[in-house]
Amino acid sequence: MPRLNKTKRRIWTVENGQVTRKADHLATEEPLEILLRAGDEQRTVAITMRTPGNDYELAAGFLHSEGIVEDKLDIVQMTYCTDGSGQMQEYNALRVQLRRDTLPELARLERHFFTNSACGVCGATMLDDLAQRDLPPFQAETVVTPQVLAGLPEALREAQSLFETTGGLHAAALFTVEGQLLALREDVGRHNALDKLIGWGLLSHQIPFDDKVILVSGRASYELLQKCRVAGAPIFCAVSAPSSLAVELAERFGVTLVGFLRGQRFNVYSGIARIKPHDGTARNSALAA
Amino acid sequence: MPRLNKTKRRIWTVENGQVTRKADHLATEEPLEILLRAGDEQRTVAITMRTPGNDYELAAGFLHSEGIVEDKLDIVQMTYCTDGSGQMQEYNALRVQLRRDTLPELARLERHFFTNSACGVCGATMLDDLAQRDLPPFQAETVVTPQVLAGLPEALREAQSLFETTGGLHAAALFTVEGQLLALREDVGRHNALDKLIGWGLLSHQIPFDDKVILVSGRASYELLQKCRVAGAPIFCAVSAPSSLAVELAERFGVTLVGFLRGQRFNVYSGIARIKPHDGTARNSALAA
Repeated sequence: MPRLNKTKRRIWTVENGQVTRKADHLATEEPLEILLRAGDEQRTVAITMRTPGNDYELAAGFLHSEGIVEDKLDIVQMTYCTDGSGQMQEYNALRVQLRRDTLPELARLERHFFTNSACGVCGATMLDDLAQRDLPPFQAETVVTPQVLAGLPEALREAQSLFETTGGLHAAALFTVEGQLLALREDVGRHNALDKLIGWGLLSHQIPFDDKVILVSGRASYELLQKCRVAGAPIFCAVSAPSSLAVELAERFGVTLVGFLRGQRFNVYSGIARIKPHDGTARNSALAA
Repeated sequence: MPRLNKTKRRIWTVENGQVTRKADHLATEEPLEILLRAGDEQRTVAITMRTPGNDYELAAGFLHSEGIVEDKLDIVQMTYCTDGSGQMQEYNALRVQLRRDTLPELARLERHFFTNSACGVCGATMLDDLAQRDLPPFQAETVVTPQVLAGLPEALREAQSLFETTGGLHAAALFTVEGQLLALREDVGRHNALDKLIGWGLLSHQIPFDDKVILVSGRASYELLQKCRVAGAPIFCAVSAPSSLAVELAERFGVTLVGFLRGQRFNVYSGIARIKPHDGTARNSALAA
């Protein structure tokens, strides 16, 4: 069965320090590997993090945008690879058979490849890969109050000077658990904003970011959580929604993941033990839920 | 001089059909090529579309996230490549000299490469490359009214079923110039949403999208405008801000680019001749401005 475009999960909602447990839906994020085949030649041309659904269109549109396919007739057929890699990996690799006899020039097409990109890659594989890396140890005892979290978005916005004038920038910021802003970086690309923040930490010998909180202005994807984990930050907050794979990564690696952080109300997707009011109410009601 | 992180431009603001000309600032978008050097070996490991500024941090953070650099001491030096490629290309290529003697395993690092990725790539190079491709002809005479444009965001949101439940998806939609929704696709990645829409068009023989309007839920970047141009759509609208390179592309290729489209008020960054009220007022006041 093709993978679903949304994923159901139980999350915590925190509002004015009060915690409630509820069911929620996340946009599914899963890698799709696109393989081109022409004559006897076959090659992976892209691995993109996508929401399952309309995968044939995704492959056709990508190949058209890149100038590989001009017309539907250039494609003989598209099929999911189901080469025995197990159910998890089915529907995450798509083979596009071209009408031509040899593969076109692909130098400009090479995207983000992974060493393990045998036919069939999935979220679980990516999490396994990450687990094999030498990641910094984690401060399990780091805690932050809901009050501090609620104040972060405004602190971010106030410090975001470039956004003010252009209205068009993503931001990534690093805070102490007391809510003090340590650094903020902006970029048209959200991965870049976080890379700049982590690069600042590396160049100023402040990596790993243990005992710190990262806040990004947009959504939380697999790739952002991966960067957060590698940088050693135990708490990751996003102003918008997380994807399914971001939540899976956070859960597996013990990162506290907060989403829709826009003030006194926010969602917690994993690691709620690190969120603790001074009087302990939220923690208790979470444990009671 | 390093490239600026914002770019000044004259744009049009349309409000209730009335057009005014004003100065605006755009977030600068320019490619940055990151080259790794170790001993005698050198290799491009990434070309990323970024906002200039904190480039050393961006490179260091990217390399740390990818597991190439663990510590600042792994980097001997970082320098911009200024190998005589002209002023436009300076500060868009960064060479990172590693302490180790040979390049690390880079298979998992390969990102979006371009055939012309000699040391030094810039927005102008990318526009030149695109100009060399066999692009579909353009309907200069396509027009749309401000009233139709103002209604598109609500039509998009109404049709965006998955966003409703997850709050976390980008959308790309195709409309007629009368405002009729032809197709909508959603994805966690905005490039993917547009690729799916274009793939739908390709597989149903509706490419090129001449005489049509594309609307995306987020920002307008170089890559989205490139896809729009290849698909032949003359009018591209975004709910949020465009980047500098998106505007340059739109201007150079004659695409009408609308940003901050959220109802009766929106900005036009290029090709305002295609936006024309039934009574002709907006066009006239634009021409008078």
